[in-house]
Amino acid sequence: MKIRMELGPDSYDILIERGCLARAGKELDLNRKVLVVTDEGVPAEYAEEVADQCGQATVCTVPQGERSKSPEMFERLLSEMLKNGFTRTDCVCAIGGGVVGDLSGFAASCYMRGIDFYNLPTTVLAQVDSSIGGKTAVNLNGVKNAVGSFWQPKKVLIDPDTLKTLSPRHTANGLAEALKAGLIADEKLFTLFETGEAAQDPERILPAALTVKKKVVEADEKETGLRRILNFGHTIGHGIESVTGLLHGECVALGMIPLCTENVRARLLPVLEKLGLPTAVRADPEAVYAAMLHDKKAAHGEITVVRVENPGSCIMERVRPETLRDAIRQVVRP
Amino acid sequence: MKIRMELGPDSYDILIERGCLARAGKELDLNRKVLVVTDEGVPAEYAEEVADQCGQATVCTVPQGERSKSPEMFERLLSEMLKNGFTRTDCVCAIGGGVVGDLSGFAASCYMRGIDFYNLPTTVLAQVDSSIGGKTAVNLNGVKNAVGSFWQPKKVLIDPDTLKTLSPRHTANGLAEALKAGLIADEKLFTLFETGEAAQDPERILPAALTVKKKVVEADEKETGLRRILNFGHTIGHGIESVTGLLHGECVALGMIPLCTENVRARLLPVLEKLGLPTAVRADPEAVYAAMLHDKKAAHGEITVVRVENPGSCIMERVRPETLRDAIRQVVRP
Repeated sequence: MKIRMELGPDSYDILIERGCLARAGKELDLNRKVLVVTDEGVPAEYAEEVADQCGQATVCTVPQGERSKSPEMFERLLSEMLKNGFTRTDCVCAIGGGVVGDLSGFAASCYMRGIDFYNLPTTVLAQVDSSIGGKTAVNLNGVKNAVGSFWQPKKVLIDPDTLKTLSPRHTANGLAEALKAGLIADEKLFTLFETGEAAQDPERILPAALTVKKKVVEADEKETGLRRILNFGHTIGHGIESVTGLLHGECVALGMIPLCTENVRARLLPVLEKLGLPTAVRADPEAVYAAMLHDKKAAHGEITVVRVENPGSCIMERVRPETLRDAIRQVVRP
Repeated sequence: MKIRMELGPDSYDILIERGCLARAGKELDLNRKVLVVTDEGVPAEYAEEVADQCGQATVCTVPQGERSKSPEMFERLLSEMLKNGFTRTDCVCAIGGGVVGDLSGFAASCYMRGIDFYNLPTTVLAQVDSSIGGKTAVNLNGVKNAVGSFWQPKKVLIDPDTLKTLSPRHTANGLAEALKAGLIADEKLFTLFETGEAAQDPERILPAALTVKKKVVEADEKETGLRRILNFGHTIGHGIESVTGLLHGECVALGMIPLCTENVRARLLPVLEKLGLPTAVRADPEAVYAAMLHDKKAAHGEITVVRVENPGSCIMERVRPETLRDAIRQVVRP
């Protein structure tokens, strides 16, 4: 199936189709110089399969993990393109998870002031979340996504076959973002988690989760208002992510818990347990609070938090950061 | 006077007014955190005067010259903003020439995925050329403007009083770009150079030169077609700039000479001599040719060159790079 992102001159298609990696050369314009970016955690055959379909491919494999979202790695990709004589009409192709997409999308947005970018996400997390929305970034001095751009891909190819090689933990990690989409905007999607269908067949919930994000991003591409609802669970979640070794989706799961009404929480906790996502973590709550303040969303005097009062609907609220101290303690225990 | 750049949601005003630096606080929204970027060649009082009108100013003075357009300096500006807790609602203010504008505009475009940018150009070159058009960039591995973005300023303040402190050589350097504007699109502007009025009073030709660029940029913001006419003189000029110690405008002046018809050249040479701009340079023509090929505009199999057949009108032509070898030898002599 195909989802069309309507963003004026930056509109693009998201194709969800088993085996579409093998047909990348037909779906994308790869008959030129292509920087294929992947990471060491992604099965190498994915990048090789795509590279084989390119006019002239340069494959760059970066180390796995958040640390590759760095100015150094950004410069490495740019240098690689320069060395190989890439021009403004060449392109970048990301194959992997969110780190690969964020990093290489940023490089594409800046090389010669911007060249074409294709995103081929291979994790649940990237497929339901970071592949859509056009946010690119690297981290700087410990601040997540401090440097980046809004740069829409020319096309996104989602091949659900790639999910087969994913560990259960990484699958659950990605499902946390789909669960978030259900909680803020699609009750039916949330119920698929309650029945267990989402966990059984992650592919099934892709279209619904993407559609939630599509609508929000189309209404507010540059995150000046509505788009902030996508940050549900992220304010506290980013704080936990800075302090613990947990994965992004796991931290978002934890961050959502205190910002639900009791009713919703009573339905959410069993879902998280079924998915194998954490419902509490051992860490210093004050360190999480400090990290949260350090995060850009907390840099003002007040923070915008998103609360879910019923599955499928949410509100935004401006609060003073201190009011989140207790919330953090609900899920972070010393 | 005010010139309005019509670029849809990215539209902005260019104010040309003596003494407007002293009123920056009234013209711009500086009641927030402001990164004031300037360089060591710019009289320090300009940045101080603007900083005094800011809610909370951080002044960054970078070394003078092209070498400040580097990834390292880009990162330094970003780190400075992070250190001072800049958020997405804060801004960057450039005070100086093209290097300062290009570098700090790029930092503004990437900090937290883009914050407000004000440009206060203080050289003729920046006032007639780089302050308009939204191109930002740094150099990488010896390739000029290899990394950058299109990021329109929120407003441009041009204070012609700042030109009083400029050396005659730097004044002529900037006038070369205004001369280029006349040659490609405004015969009347060109004749102001022939009569000597342009050299006598650079302020006078600012509106006409800016209007040429305004129209071209409005028609082709992202340089996919027409905007390339602004590169008249730049293909060969960038090659000369890489190899010699000449200033940008001086190199553009040299680069224009071989791409005029004989008629136009006969009128152009006396103008260049009157301005004190070079009409020939001692250097290795083959080194210039190689540097030109290295430049992005020459990276394809063919190069787009702009030719002026009559003052005020130009044509674009796709040529093989080799055809420019002789052209280079007309102005570069071993």
